[in-house]
Amino acid sequence: MIDSEFTVINLVNSVIDGKTSVKSLTDCLIARVGVVNQGIHAFTEVRKEYILDQAKSLDQNKQDGCYLGKLYGVPIAVSDNISTSDFFTEQGSKIYKGQQLSKDATVVLRLRNEGAVIFGKTNLTEFSDSEPTITLNPHNQNRSPGGSASGAAASVAAGLVPLSVASQNDGSIITSASYCGVYGFKPTNGLVPRTGLMTKSTTFDSIGFFSRSIEDIGYVMEVVSGDDGLDSDSSGFACGKKFFQILSHDPPFDPKFLYAKTPSITKLDKSIQKTMKTLCKKMSAHLTEIDLPKLVLTSENIFKIIYDVELSSNLSNEYENHKSLLSPGIKRKIRNGKKITGYDYLKALGNREKISLAFNDFFEHFDAIITPSTPSVAPLLNQKITTDRCLSTMWSLSGFPMINLPMFNLDNSMPFGIQLVGRPNDDARLLRTARWLVNNFGQTQRNTL
Amino acid sequence: MIDSEFTVINLVNSVIDGKTSVKSLTDCLIARVGVVNQGIHAFTEVRKEYILDQAKSLDQNKQDGCYLGKLYGVPIAVSDNISTSDFFTEQGSKIYKGQQLSKDATVVLRLRNEGAVIFGKTNLTEFSDSEPTITLNPHNQNRSPGGSASGAAASVAAGLVPLSVASQNDGSIITSASYCGVYGFKPTNGLVPRTGLMTKSTTFDSIGFFSRSIEDIGYVMEVVSGDDGLDSDSSGFACGKKFFQILSHDPPFDPKFLYAKTPSITKLDKSIQKTMKTLCKKMSAHLTEIDLPKLVLTSENIFKIIYDVELSSNLSNEYENHKSLLSPGIKRKIRNGKKITGYDYLKALGNREKISLAFNDFFEHFDAIITPSTPSVAPLLNQKITTDRCLSTMWSLSGFPMINLPMFNLDNSMPFGIQLVGRPNDDARLLRTARWLVNNFGQTQRNTL
Repeated sequence: MIDSEFTVINLVNSVIDGKTSVKSLTDCLIARVGVVNQGIHAFTEVRKEYILDQAKSLDQNKQDGCYLGKLYGVPIAVSDNISTSDFFTEQGSKIYKGQQLSKDATVVLRLRNEGAVIFGKTNLTEFSDSEPTITLNPHNQNRSPGGSASGAAASVAAGLVPLSVASQNDGSIITSASYCGVYGFKPTNGLVPRTGLMTKSTTFDSIGFFSRSIEDIGYVMEVVSGDDGLDSDSSGFACGKKFFQILSHDPPFDPKFLYAKTPSITKLDKSIQKTMKTLCKKMSAHLTEIDLPKLVLTSENIFKIIYDVELSSNLSNEYENHKSLLSPGIKRKIRNGKKITGYDYLKALGNREKISLAFNDFFEHFDAIITPSTPSVAPLLNQKITTDRCLSTMWSLSGFPMINLPMFNLDNSMPFGIQLVGRPNDDARLLRTARWLVNNFGQTQRNTL
Repeated sequence: MIDSEFTVINLVNSVIDGKTSVKSLTDCLIARVGVVNQGIHAFTEVRKEYILDQAKSLDQNKQDGCYLGKLYGVPIAVSDNISTSDFFTEQGSKIYKGQQLSKDATVVLRLRNEGAVIFGKTNLTEFSDSEPTITLNPHNQNRSPGGSASGAAASVAAGLVPLSVASQNDGSIITSASYCGVYGFKPTNGLVPRTGLMTKSTTFDSIGFFSRSIEDIGYVMEVVSGDDGLDSDSSGFACGKKFFQILSHDPPFDPKFLYAKTPSITKLDKSIQKTMKTLCKKMSAHLTEIDLPKLVLTSENIFKIIYDVELSSNLSNEYENHKSLLSPGIKRKIRNGKKITGYDYLKALGNREKISLAFNDFFEHFDAIITPSTPSVAPLLNQKITTDRCLSTMWSLSGFPMINLPMFNLDNSMPFGIQLVGRPNDDARLLRTARWLVNNFGQTQRNTL
């Protein structure tokens, strides 16, 4: 079961068809996690009893002839800044050690309602910021798995679960997926309600997924997306949109891609430069290269202003009352955030709007923007860098949907991914475009760990 | 025609029934405005040709058997910070002297589409802030008409138009209506789209009305309210809600009122104290007195932080490039706004949310909060105070619907009004409650100027 066929859709079919019971599948995975997690520390802890309770209850549902749900029996991991009613929610912070919340986040509740087994919480950087975690890259334990959602990416890459839920502010999902060789999808901001995600940045907080197939993402998006009546940013987004159905068909016309020569493109490692050159050549009939508008050059600065102000506001209680339990890095950002004027903050929000509008125009003629996801493969641990987000910040800034496609393994056997960015609230089209790209130009290395 | 029967609904009926043509009505009003406006300066200018063009075209529509519209032939004034495609839009600022915009604001367009005659633009304070205008109070030309929407209030009080459109940030509509002895209604923020209203404060900007009857407000709200697909704050508000129908019926049960002992209640003039005491006694079966939550005491400060930051951001171009054309008062607020940190700004927004939630609970058991609209009648011009907003700031802060009822004339023959505050997005109920109050406890002095 733990191979390239280890996907959400395959598992649902196996369990519904009776090839295995939920309990047998779960027992098998608990045993595997017990061994593998000691090496890579993807999960914060393995609470067998919580997992098996869910499995037994689902098997009982089948015996009782109950509705089984679209995710019946599927084990799913949840990043530890997303609230769950059973496992602890510690947010990667010493301050919240042993914090037991009473409610599931909307995304968790929706997964459970469709029969998913919440398998545990995964390690993330302190308050999903930049402080490295104890999680190691499953492909090479001397390298970073990326972050903030380090454990969520590693758990899927290591074949412990077929899908995990995580959050992204600044390229976290895209870069970790690139480093770990899995799909990583960050939907249009607001499309998946954030109720129950710990608030860090009201503007950027968003929920996404790591998976082992594009189809799985579409399949799960049908369950979790749309207005929950609680997160006002999800207001107006329809529920139950047919992502899976849309992405499963070929596009009506061959998609057109925009190769964005962002300033950071000069930072690419040689091997990645070479790979991109070959890919662009092969795709030339579908590709247009462009330079980006000038304002975009200031994206990182705009992002930082908004992020630091909102971080300082949302972590003010932690900063005032538990300062000694915060890392020096996050304290520096909070101090910086508290100094920025409201005038500069609103100006940055205004510029974000301008950049989003400028990008939006691109999608009148193109299906997706294409760039590498990261300038290098996963950094070595001794470099003490969790993630290099230089290729994803400008898209995170705009709130557009983004996906990492694990299309390449470089010479040192480390994965490296391609990033596609789509039109806001046209997420199904982005997934369909991504599937087309992988089918036509990918030698996707499905992770067979 | 220029008497207590001078209402929107009466005028529509007269013109549709053929008792007068739109042109005759308009000619008569132009003549009246020509005389009266020289005394009180409600309108910025009287552009006969623009007015008559509309009137002739409406008469032609009737001859041609076209749809006549719910506001057929009704003259309506528009505050000069709301965009119109014919008259100038000068925002009460020297910087925008002679500014000709090309589009009608959503509210203006919706009025025109139903056959209203846009009669002209009314004077307002510089950028609808606090600098006094040249407009005088129609009841006593030695007194202020209030502001920011000075001309809009005066034009209705003087019987020049039966209804005017204006904006409110901090009690502008409520207090001017109280000083001028007319109804003033500020709907739930966002219910009337702000597209075409000059942006000053993204949080507080909202559109409302002055009128000579409550019925007129409900009638016009049916035309102008609801999502326009352009102002995201109007998103989700239904169009065409039956305000008029709802307010025209008696409430199912006698309404219950909460008399809020706000800190500013101590500032009331003796004559107003006496009036309120008598009213409260009469209404005692329907009234509960309460002290407000402590956080409310900081309302004015919270309002000021949010307002000054947003003012400095929205007027940054004017401040940078036309500083010499700004008044010292507004420059001081902009300078102050630029110094406030984003941290304090977000904290103020958070406290605003808390206060709104606390107030919201009141409406589970009460239909409206009742207070005086102003602590005194209209101030004398030599006091150089446009408006005293101390009784309305805390409700403006929350974005709740508010109405001034011109229920009293004090000894010096100056009007003074009662303020009702209602539950957000329950505006029709507030209007119905207001009508009940006036019918049962009012000696409403309809302005017969």
